[in-house]
Amino acid sequence: MSQPDPKDTQLLVFDVDGVLTDGTINLDDHGVETKRFNVRDGFGMKLWMNKGFQIAIITGRSGEALKHRLATFGIEDELIIQGSGNKSESLDKILAHTGIDEAHIAYLGDDWPDLPAMRRVGYPMAVADAEPEVIAKARYITTRKGGHGAARDAIAHLLECKGRYSPE
Amino acid sequence: MSQPDPKDTQLLVFDVDGVLTDGTINLDDHGVETKRFNVRDGFGMKLWMNKGFQIAIITGRSGEALKHRLATFGIEDELIIQGSGNKSESLDKILAHTGIDEAHIAYLGDDWPDLPAMRRVGYPMAVADAEPEVIAKARYITTRKGGHGAARDAIAHLLECKGRYSPE
Amino acid sequence: MSQPDPKDTQLLVFDVDGVLTDGTINLDDHGVETKRFNVRDGFGMKLWMNKGFQIAIITGRSGEALKHRLATFGIEDELIIQGSGNKSESLDKILAHTGIDEAHIAYLGDDWPDLPAMRRVGYPMAVADAEPEVIAKARYITTRKGGHGAARDAIAHLLECKGRYSPE
Amino acid sequence: MSQPDPKDTQLLVFDVDGVLTDGTINLDDHGVETKRFNVRDGFGMKLWMNKGFQIAIITGRSGEALKHRLATFGIEDELIIQGSGNKSESLDKILAHTGIDEAHIAYLGDDWPDLPAMRRVGYPMAVADAEPEVIAKARYITTRKGGHGAARDAIAHLLECKGRYSPE
Repeated sequence: MSQPDPKDTQLLVFDVDGVLTDGTINLDDHGVETKRFNVRDGFGMKLWMNKGFQIAIITGRSGEALKHRLATFGIEDELIIQGSGNKSESLDKILAHTGIDEAHIAYLGDDWPDLPAMRRVGYPMAVADAEPEVIAKARYITTRKGGHGAARDAIAHLLECKGRYSPE
Repeated sequence: MSQPDPKDTQLLVFDVDGVLTDGTINLDDHGVETKRFNVRDGFGMKLWMNKGFQIAIITGRSGEALKHRLATFGIEDELIIQGSGNKSESLDKILAHTGIDEAHIAYLGDDWPDLPAMRRVGYPMAVADAEPEVIAKARYITTRKGGHGAARDAIAHLLECKGRYSPE
Repeated sequence: MSQPDPKDTQLLVFDVDGVLTDGTINLDDHGVETKRFNVRDGFGMKLWMNKGFQIAIITGRSGEALKHRLATFGIEDELIIQGSGNKSESLDKILAHTGIDEAHIAYLGDDWPDLPAMRRVGYPMAVADAEPEVIAKARYITTRKGGHGAARDAIAHLLECKGRYSPE
Repeated sequence: MSQPDPKDTQLLVFDVDGVLTDGTINLDDHGVETKRFNVRDGFGMKLWMNKGFQIAIITGRSGEALKHRLATFGIEDELIIQGSGNKSESLDKILAHTGIDEAHIAYLGDDWPDLPAMRRVGYPMAVADAEPEVIAKARYITTRKGGHGAARDAIAHLLECKGRYSPE
């Protein structure tokens, strides 16, 4: 059986720390956390959604910073899953909510907890600086590191597969 | 028709995120954003203005951090445009306020939203780590990345074109 | 006499600044400090402890940020030593509390204050960007820099020595 | 006349932004600034002072973060000059207060405002990523960038010139 074609991707799932950020956990003396997102990732995510495709988030950690970042993106609450102890189960929830087939889902990850979900989706992707075991399971590896434009790179790649990535 | 000469630049327009910063959107649990500006960019901006040239800012995002950074620079309020949904329209406002000809304007950008304004000005420039489509439209590409001295580099280049960049 | 075998390591000691962080001391106008930890180091530390091994922390500085980071890791209070003026003496306390032999202890350091403790343990390790004098005393040098996954790298190396590093 | 010998250096002057930090001006929505110092620079500064030598600070900017960082170092108030509009004049104050000869002073800088002071001291030094005009005037260029250990490097170099840099 042939592998799913990336041009058929309808939904793109992102891990957060190490994917939408550079993996730093910035904590101050009061326990307040700061996350380092990337402006061009944000532009890419809006571009992807404006073309009619969907975004979901699955992260093992929890925090308010992510909510603040995503507030204006228009992602449905059911597709933002924080505190996930099992990313494959979180993927089940996303499948149930959207009705999209696994074959039409792409996933961008960086570390072992992403592997159970990556093994199931049609198009698993890894950030440039992902752990070796994650790189090994990815069908596409971004040229940029997490938090340094990896998400934009992944979106550009998928839209290029669809022939729809152009500023004109 | 020959292209405008960079030595005739009177006004330099900067995007913010990814140009005056490294493109990181640093958000804490309370939604407070921190921007990472660069001290040498600031020195360059003051040098440029002290020699009688102007600076304008056009950014799609909004926030108080930018105002705090620019507070001591002496840039007119009308030349600091935040929340721009269309940077070409924002450029119109700058043209109307200053009366400077497009041919005498330089613009330093990094991503697609900068392209409509970059196409109109006399001297479009891109930061070293700009998106490929922006690099392709630039007449000058800085050697430094956004937030790592790209603005200083652009100013040094323009002043060198004018024969006016020297610490002596 | 042969050197201790890293596969016998039972306890791994970490310095903090420059090892679990990138060595930046981020201070704001109010004196509040922010530490830059790494999400994949955290995953590695949990993996190490879940396999029944121990972690201790010895740092010369003090602050609340570290406590917030370690809160969910389950490290005993006696094994988190802040404000250490003499890391060899701090090691004594860890030995007394755990009863583990020096030969079965590994230590990951980056700078001169780590040397007195590194000289005593069975398996001294240095981060990729450690001071030369620390590199010289290490039996293993991580490929990643402090705060950029050095701790994960050290744990992966020790677990590989034990034949127990695999996501399967 | 021969140049002053670096082994005779008694006082080391540091610029702050771009020298003791990486040059980022981190500003949040409330105008609170965070400075990124380096833990190993701090160790070097204490080492230098413990051996009986002096440190002074001259910076064009002002803020509380610097005071918090230097609080435990024991530098005299008169040798910490913030808001300097003319670093050569600030050097005069340091000379008057300490009575040390210019020939026995080293200065670590990164940008044009440091040049007037650098030209006067016996041993001008530049961080690895200093502006080209500053590199050109330096007798020593650190291998590390500002905020990434440049100050530690400069101190190690001076102590090596004196034959006094060793962890033993």
